[in-house]
Amino acid sequence: MTIKDIAESCGVSISTVSRVLNDHPDVSPKVRQKVLETARAAHYVPNNSARDLVRARSEGIGLIVRGVGNPFFTEVIHAIERAIDAAGYSMALHQIGSDDDEIMAGATLARSKKLKGLIFLGGKGDYQSSDIAILDVPFVCCTYTVRFTPLPRESYSSVAIDDKMEGYRAVRMLLEKGHRKIGVLLNSQHDHSIGELRYMGYCEALSDAGLTVEESLVEETGSFALSDAYEATGRLVKRRPDLTAIFTISDTMGMAAIKALHDLGRAVPEDCSVISIDGMDMTNYILPPLATMAQPQQELGVTAVGTLVDMIEGRAGNRHILLPATPRMGGSVAPC
Amino acid sequence: MTIKDIAESCGVSISTVSRVLNDHPDVSPKVRQKVLETARAAHYVPNNSARDLVRARSEGIGLIVRGVGNPFFTEVIHAIERAIDAAGYSMALHQIGSDDDEIMAGATLARSKKLKGLIFLGGKGDYQSSDIAILDVPFVCCTYTVRFTPLPRESYSSVAIDDKMEGYRAVRMLLEKGHRKIGVLLNSQHDHSIGELRYMGYCEALSDAGLTVEESLVEETGSFALSDAYEATGRLVKRRPDLTAIFTISDTMGMAAIKALHDLGRAVPEDCSVISIDGMDMTNYILPPLATMAQPQQELGVTAVGTLVDMIEGRAGNRHILLPATPRMGGSVAPC
Repeated sequence: MTIKDIAESCGVSISTVSRVLNDHPDVSPKVRQKVLETARAAHYVPNNSARDLVRARSEGIGLIVRGVGNPFFTEVIHAIERAIDAAGYSMALHQIGSDDDEIMAGATLARSKKLKGLIFLGGKGDYQSSDIAILDVPFVCCTYTVRFTPLPRESYSSVAIDDKMEGYRAVRMLLEKGHRKIGVLLNSQHDHSIGELRYMGYCEALSDAGLTVEESLVEETGSFALSDAYEATGRLVKRRPDLTAIFTISDTMGMAAIKALHDLGRAVPEDCSVISIDGMDMTNYILPPLATMAQPQQELGVTAVGTLVDMIEGRAGNRHILLPATPRMGGSVAPC
Repeated sequence: MTIKDIAESCGVSISTVSRVLNDHPDVSPKVRQKVLETARAAHYVPNNSARDLVRARSEGIGLIVRGVGNPFFTEVIHAIERAIDAAGYSMALHQIGSDDDEIMAGATLARSKKLKGLIFLGGKGDYQSSDIAILDVPFVCCTYTVRFTPLPRESYSSVAIDDKMEGYRAVRMLLEKGHRKIGVLLNSQHDHSIGELRYMGYCEALSDAGLTVEESLVEETGSFALSDAYEATGRLVKRRPDLTAIFTISDTMGMAAIKALHDLGRAVPEDCSVISIDGMDMTNYILPPLATMAQPQQELGVTAVGTLVDMIEGRAGNRHILLPATPRMGGSVAPC
């Protein structure tokens, strides 16, 4: 059965059937139901190429998600998905592990699916020009940017928070509450990505306050897993029982730190304050709610898509957009 | 530059280059690095069709994920991804909203990508034979099964926990601790899926204990959003201040319920116990850790892939596998 057969059987025009099958809004609920029931009864499956012909712009945008299982990305992916759809494009999503090469994955995906552009959700901040030369479509780094190599700014786009600055602001809040012995929990001091940048913010905030960065207050988790952050908090507190606050570079680490402190007999925030960066919805529902610099998750996704679509459609070239995070005070920070 | 050129330039065989580019393990780190550097320097991008020829079985398996942003699925997706890869297949992932039709989405994906089989992660339990007739590849319902229609068992496969039974077991644990006034928080009593099944378990456990299901103890959230579960807990406690325990049908709802109870001045578990079903890693790190019937997330994913691959390769027909959940006592349940 073709679209034409369905149209005849329902007594509506072919374009009405097409609007229903492509989920356009301007069809009455009654007609929509009738068309869907007829299509269903006839075991009609929309053929993608046929559907693509109907849509004005059906080209695909690839989304490479780095770090499988990063719950912070869930909201951003959702926003990207809706924005791509609203812009009239289709989305090809590909997840890669934390150690995989997102540029190679993106180049492969773009070529095999003939994509018009790419969004990298999570990635490294040390690309060389030779790395990105394999990409022959416009792309946007979403939630990160390139800070560790002199990659020409006009050769790529990015939409992110200022990770170093937000790390600085988070630690500044602890300092303003009188904390001086502030630990830091991070995946790695040398990840050439957001971990290192947020750590640089920590160092600069301490330095501006006239404090020295003490190695014994710095603890690496080696990953973003909750269990690793839990163990790392234990090591940190054992080494520095005098600390009064911890800055964690992600919400998931903040969650694990609060639990670990509790299990060590330290109440948060009475005995130790915790502040992080991310602003996941979920960490509003823990006890105490996590103090965090909340990234604008929706806006990051929507802006990344807008930036890419402007390039694909020739309205603009590469751009770099820094969005501010919003302090969410939660309940995990108290005066020292 | 072709694979052959890379092989010559590195002084290794074509099959070695192919093994490196396809990420097979049996290559020395040194050779791997050399091949990757050469490929990178030459801006070599693996062509998917070429790569597909190299791989013994490159056919694709589609994964339709229903309910964008369900954090419980993250671990399962990860397990499915690794199992598909280990079985020598490639994965096409497609996310759909909670109200979308997974069967139609699966049929479209399977046709457009010429897939060999499908896994539905999350879905409805009321398929008719006419619904699934549009699927012409084998498929596995993962984390749910069909209980609300007499769909012939030999016409589909499923890998899931016994949702009704696990709901029963969770409520049974509250009853054994002396609780009699037990509220239930669920998305809907009539979702024809896991919500309804787990609720049936609640009803049966009460009934077996000689208790009546009181309507005023049942609260629907309307969704799986934390904010909705938080509000619903408020309504429930306001209506029934005498309740001493709440069974929530998901971990995310359990998290929100603990927070809401706390904000209403009720400590968990001292003033009210909470138990749920799911067993997300994250809910081990909240205070108190959530008591829950933990689904075997890894095993659900791996078994779904195994079941599907057995069908694709002709070793077995449709099967239905029920995996047991494991009680995780957490800290959110206390005697009444």
